[in-house]
Amino acid sequence: MQGVLSAGKVIVAGSEAESLVKGHSRKRGRLELEEAAGLLETDKIVIKDEEGKEMSPDEFLKRALAISPEFGLRYLVYNDLKERGYVVQPGGVDFWLYPRGVKPGEKPARYFIRILSESATISLKELVELLILARNMRKAPIIAVVDEESDITYYEVKDAKFENSEARKEEQRKVKASLFGDRVVIWDADLAETLYRTYFYGTLTKEKRLLLSFLEAAYLMRKGTLELEVAPQLSTLNSQPFERFIEYASTIETAFRDKYAVYADLMEKGQMVKTGFKFGSHFRVYKAMQLKHSLYLVHVLSEEHVFPLPELSRAVRLAHGVRKRMIFAFTIAEGIRYVDVGRMKL
Amino acid sequence: MQGVLSAGKVIVAGSEAESLVKGHSRKRGRLELEEAAGLLETDKIVIKDEEGKEMSPDEFLKRALAISPEFGLRYLVYNDLKERGYVVQPGGVDFWLYPRGVKPGEKPARYFIRILSESATISLKELVELLILARNMRKAPIIAVVDEESDITYYEVKDAKFENSEARKEEQRKVKASLFGDRVVIWDADLAETLYRTYFYGTLTKEKRLLLSFLEAAYLMRKGTLELEVAPQLSTLNSQPFERFIEYASTIETAFRDKYAVYADLMEKGQMVKTGFKFGSHFRVYKAMQLKHSLYLVHVLSEEHVFPLPELSRAVRLAHGVRKRMIFAFTIAEGIRYVDVGRMKL
Repeated sequence: MQGVLSAGKVIVAGSEAESLVKGHSRKRGRLELEEAAGLLETDKIVIKDEEGKEMSPDEFLKRALAISPEFGLRYLVYNDLKERGYVVQPGGVDFWLYPRGVKPGEKPARYFIRILSESATISLKELVELLILARNMRKAPIIAVVDEESDITYYEVKDAKFENSEARKEEQRKVKASLFGDRVVIWDADLAETLYRTYFYGTLTKEKRLLLSFLEAAYLMRKGTLELEVAPQLSTLNSQPFERFIEYASTIETAFRDKYAVYADLMEKGQMVKTGFKFGSHFRVYKAMQLKHSLYLVHVLSEEHVFPLPELSRAVRLAHGVRKRMIFAFTIAEGIRYVDVGRMKL
Repeated sequence: MQGVLSAGKVIVAGSEAESLVKGHSRKRGRLELEEAAGLLETDKIVIKDEEGKEMSPDEFLKRALAISPEFGLRYLVYNDLKERGYVVQPGGVDFWLYPRGVKPGEKPARYFIRILSESATISLKELVELLILARNMRKAPIIAVVDEESDITYYEVKDAKFENSEARKEEQRKVKASLFGDRVVIWDADLAETLYRTYFYGTLTKEKRLLLSFLEAAYLMRKGTLELEVAPQLSTLNSQPFERFIEYASTIETAFRDKYAVYADLMEKGQMVKTGFKFGSHFRVYKAMQLKHSLYLVHVLSEEHVFPLPELSRAVRLAHGVRKRMIFAFTIAEGIRYVDVGRMKL
């Protein structure tokens, strides 16, 4: 087969193009640079330049790189997916990916692929844009990260939903508590044990005191269960105690409001939320009222967050290593948005 | 035994204090709040307030919290270390920690402990200050992080040294290469294989091209091995090619200079450096010229970096999970500084 490089595509004769259309391009008679390079390197095509001179694979690759600096990364991902037995088509965000064994035209593409270098970044906003695009196109987004060794890691990005499974039951008695450094302590041994054993709040000390995090304390104040005995230096807490407490907590931890918003949202949805500190995330989340294996790590970010890609890799790898999903949560105008990023084995 | 709370300490009578001195306080006749609380909760002391009224443990803890908001975290860590069988003394940065079974006075403390809440941060500069203090005091620093569930994780902080084990051998022939997106390609199959198999650079494609990262390419340019064939749009590279290349790479990756400085320093010290992307760090580092199991993950930070503690936890946990040490590297006036942070099983 013969082709001619022209205006950043390789033009092939009509009849010969036919055999390529299924496997290689939906645009008859035109091959994208990655497709043409793939055929050239496997000796399935001869490509001439504008002056009619036949190009070696090396010459063609150099031309392709001169036409588009993105060709380098794109060709690495294109080859990797081909080698894994997928049909992949340049187009869309970067590429379309078809289910294994399916030919373009038979079935629609299932995924679109966004290609990034390890040294790039991706913002939360860009992740959300990918999700919006995916919903509109009825595809799923994949991020392909090409690392410095030209190995490729694939991540799937999904909306995470926490079902509003069942209403949370709360203790009906009023509970008095007081500040204990950057946590809150319940001194009454009976109430402490009930809140701990029945409602899974806090940590019970051997003296039967219950230590609550500020998040738990704020939530219980909001629910009307907890009343804070206020130290003299915090006496302004007495009016509008919940709002004052949130303000006070925010002076101790800058991002407290964001964390509380996510914590409260998950609790309202009937989830069990505990610290995820040992796993390097803000929360580990259990199915409602079951403290067996937590299924999710949730990390709270600002809507403006930008991920260096090693950060994303570190979070996702750690979560998978402990058999959990990695969820990033952030506050938007409409409430809390949860984005699930997972490693994808292609 | 009897004590009286006064000016933030508990004063005990001289003769009775003697029995406490070894185990509890180096300052005879005065107990720190944590020590007094520990004795009170185990019924070994009676403590009266300034008016001579005996205090219950709850009352004493409330008084202690009113005296110092830090008492909450400090008491949690104090109790945890006691329960683990250590002798711990309030003082120094936060506490002194003695080797197991040793009594203060018999031997010096081995560690000092800095206490932080999960919701706090610690800057690289603070880590370095701990190391300087440690060297001057001939102790080792431990960071105790109290998480939201009041569980405590201990981290040891150390200077990391990379020995200048053996001189790196480099290819003597000049190698021509060209830009391939955000990496560099060597087209000559023979040189490509040599650089890959003998010197462990880059990734060899099945077409026997060698793909180098910008870091590797810059380093080989610096060594005089690699010469970049310059694309027309980058023709300014021709004069001072190394410096121009660094500038160009910095337009693609903001922190390229910092990463290169660390990469080059490690390479000069005879280490093998590859990307640590799959482990969420910039580099994995092997012993010189041995590509077996990499021993270190190295992540490059700016000297101004401030760690939210979950970030530190995530990095260290992931590194340990793959049996590597977590090293943070940053450029200072004198060169590169490496700080090793590891989880400590006490």
